[in-house]
Amino acid sequence: MPFDDQISRISKFAADRDWEQFHSVRNLILALVGEVGELAEIVQWVSDEKISEFFGDPKNQARFEEELADVLIYLLRLASIRNIDLEGALKKKIESNEEKFPVAKSKGSSKKYTEM
Amino acid sequence: MPFDDQISRISKFAADRDWEQFHSVRNLILALVGEVGELAEIVQWVSDEKISEFFGDPKNQARFEEELADVLIYLLRLASIRNIDLEGALKKKIESNEEKFPVAKSKGSSKKYTEM
Amino acid sequence: MPFDDQISRISKFAADRDWEQFHSVRNLILALVGEVGELAEIVQWVSDEKISEFFGDPKNQARFEEELADVLIYLLRLASIRNIDLEGALKKKIESNEEKFPVAKSKGSSKKYTEM
Amino acid sequence: MPFDDQISRISKFAADRDWEQFHSVRNLILALVGEVGELAEIVQWVSDEKISEFFGDPKNQARFEEELADVLIYLLRLASIRNIDLEGALKKKIESNEEKFPVAKSKGSSKKYTEM
Repeated sequence: MPFDDQISRISKFAADRDWEQFHSVRNLILALVGEVGELAEIVQWVSDEKISEFFGDPKNQARFEEELADVLIYLLRLASIRNIDLEGALKKKIESNEEKFPVAKSKGSSKKYTEM
Repeated sequence: MPFDDQISRISKFAADRDWEQFHSVRNLILALVGEVGELAEIVQWVSDEKISEFFGDPKNQARFEEELADVLIYLLRLASIRNIDLEGALKKKIESNEEKFPVAKSKGSSKKYTEM
Repeated sequence: MPFDDQISRISKFAADRDWEQFHSVRNLILALVGEVGELAEIVQWVSDEKISEFFGDPKNQARFEEELADVLIYLLRLASIRNIDLEGALKKKIESNEEKFPVAKSKGSSKKYTEM
Repeated sequence: MPFDDQISRISKFAADRDWEQFHSVRNLILALVGEVGELAEIVQWVSDEKISEFFGDPKNQARFEEELADVLIYLLRLASIRNIDLEGALKKKIESNEEKFPVAKSKGSSKKYTEM
């Protein structure tokens, strides 16, 4: 499983602090929402036109990386507590998207494309 | 890099459909928000008390797995378009959390624990 | 229109600071996501069982009120820049929900109840 | 209180269906997250450049209005179950923002402006 070492380390981190009691599915989803909020805040006032310039500043890039990592931590933790094979789920979903959006019908159009 | 094959496949998926034009940072964050919303919807009316019973139904577990995969797809795609080494960012953040929340001071308390 | 004075004051607040340029639909949605994230953070580690005790602390109640206000500010601002009659939209949606979920069929069940 | 009639009607709607049992703070926040996700989905693939054209289509404007109403319903319901004077909270927050961001220092800059 990808990120296996990190998943174990996050689990140990929680166990060492006796924080497993807080890591229920609903708590972790709320925590994930908090991190996604912080991710959104980074670019909330940066228009599409200014975004390249914005990420030209290494501080902005670093902040973005850190927030992506925060989102990923809660995602991995959610998969872990529900015993989910995230790699398997990912492969399955990618395959399903490939079937759902055939190249010939989907090319260049975001019309039918409500989700990836 | 973990999930490397999947990241390539998601990139190819977007390129084949000429959807790279839609995959800007801000678009992908909005799409991520949409998927997190679907994840939240799954358990929105399921109280903490009922959650084990809820996941006892394989259909609910499967729906949860699928939504986690959707969130992960956009997360991997965001990392990919910004050339982020997600594994490196993850390790760095886990280390930073380990320092920020020393076991002795954090044990069993969610008080100081505003984020993991 | 309810909150009319507040909507005007928020508009003036933005105009006085020359911030109208930042208040596009997409920027405001991202900002709304940020505030919803802060709302979620307040209760992320508070289980259903502990929630009454939690809100017994006036500081927690005050923080909750403040975050609700933040979400409302961006919601009112979004309606304002798109010239939306929020009261009319709200009435229409409540009526639609009343029809969509007839009392006889919906009573006590969250099964069919994917949204309110 | 603004929206007083609508708040009462939403409360009655929940009571009539015996849905008050589902309207805990955490459930309603998760439901709010779901609606914010649907709001984000509307504009997720619409770049800043195309947004005016997008809202020129009355169907898109109507969908946007409906989602704003959905977010507002859960916001009003959250305030209602926690006995929050939303108008008072809103005034207080607007005043606090006016002090926090003095016109002279904030004009035209989103730099210091991490939140409104």
